Amino acid sequence: MMHTIKNHRSIRKYKNKNIDDKSLNEILNAGIRASNTGNMQVYSIIVTRNEELKKQLWDVHFKQNMVLQAPVILTFCADINRFSKWCNFRDAEPGYDNFLWIYNATIDAILASQNVVLAAENKGLGICYLGTTTYMADKIVDILKLPKGVVPVTTITLGYPDENPELTDRLPLNGVIHKETYNDYTEDDINKIYEEKENLQETIDLIAENKTQNLAQIFTQKRYTKKDNVFFSNQFLELLKKQGFMNNK
Amino acid sequence: MMHTIKNHRSIRKYKNKNIDDKSLNEILNAGIRASNTGNMQVYSIIVTRNEELKKQLWDVHFKQNMVLQAPVILTFCADINRFSKWCNFRDAEPGYDNFLWIYNATIDAILASQNVVLAAENKGLGICYLGTTTYMADKIVDILKLPKGVVPVTTITLGYPDENPELTDRLPLNGVIHKETYNDYTEDDINKIYEEKENLQETIDLIAENKTQNLAQIFTQKRYTKKDNVFFSNQFLELLKKQGFMNNK
Repeated sequence: MMHTIKNHRSIRKYKNKNIDDKSLNEILNAGIRASNTGNMQVYSIIVTRNEELKKQLWDVHFKQNMVLQAPVILTFCADINRFSKWCNFRDAEPGYDNFLWIYNATIDAILASQNVVLAAENKGLGICYLGTTTYMADKIVDILKLPKGVVPVTTITLGYPDENPELTDRLPLNGVIHKETYNDYTEDDINKIYEEKENLQETIDLIAENKTQNLAQIFTQKRYTKKDNVFFSNQFLELLKKQGFMNNK
Repeated sequence: MMHTIKNHRSIRKYKNKNIDDKSLNEILNAGIRASNTGNMQVYSIIVTRNEELKKQLWDVHFKQNMVLQAPVILTFCADINRFSKWCNFRDAEPGYDNFLWIYNATIDAILASQNVVLAAENKGLGICYLGTTTYMADKIVDILKLPKGVVPVTTITLGYPDENPELTDRLPLNGVIHKETYNDYTEDDINKIYEEKENLQETIDLIAENKTQNLAQIFTQKRYTKKDNVFFSNQFLELLKKQGFMNNK
């Protein structure tokens, strides 16, 4: 267990080898054992293997090649549709079309996804989370025919690894942990916490390549700009409204 | 690994036995190995052992006894404060005070939490997720002194189990999985998916106890009412605004 957790790395190249149904079911069954809000299981998992659908998903996930290469794409969705339908068929009035429940359902979907990831890695499979899911959620809704009450939260590509990348760095544990209450960071704290990351050869190469003064500017000017963040925030909020999660009155 | 995942159950009674720092650090180190958005690690984990603080947390977590009993309380927070401070000290303009980033940071915090949970269970510890974190987020911000840019996402109680509860039921796998695209549910589908849950002795007892017609009504009339859901939705959205995550312009 600890070995699997400690050796996680994102896999972006996959062998041309399918995943059999039995293995996939074991992995998915691990997913549904995760904790979830009130045991309501307000999430769904879409298993996509079809080449034409994968091509459409690849297109919206910024054309990242692993979406085409991986034999299985799992899209984890917040889902109050199933639970609300159950309520309606039982003469119970569902009240889950609001912000609290996109939040709860998102948490449920992510807990399930991380169980799936570790179960998959334990079987020798590799995965990559696709953060593009939130950015392109409206397009994914169309491709996967998600009804009202369902929103894609994250996606993982799943397959047998055809690469063995290095572990990525992490901030030192004391940089993300706080004892008792939050201890806000001084400039000196920040310098210490980021020192190792800023001095990696990889970082130095990235700065040269991107022609910025430092690593932070790569994030703010290239990877995750304020302009993009604001754009995707509004697009995603619009989608939450459209999918029926913003009836907060 | 699969054994740990398959045997997860929430633990609400703990032995009067502390968790040593070495074990806790190993568990937390498992947490930070989880995937996260752009390797930005936009989350923090607050480790609370202090009895007086635990009492305050117990009070806001609906006075659930496990908060007092467990030797360690871990509050997982979405955190753009540290990353934004780093940007500011590096002459880079952070643009993460918007909805996209409370969403990304929530996902990061939850991925870390589930790694922590499995690493803890693998060591013989027990945990319970506290969904009350979202409901009472504004109070938790005060107790844990969370600055702007930080929002509590979930909490786990952590300790040595003093009970061995039954596994809770789950919907059958085919009730939460969709092949290729979303297959919306007919009434017949819903009946089949919920049949086992509705016929559990536990369910029958609950219905008698709650004097409702069926299980769905326990959820809609007692546990998660529309009125409460709307109230907590607005309260949580207010908090997101206050903590600086809703600058979407």
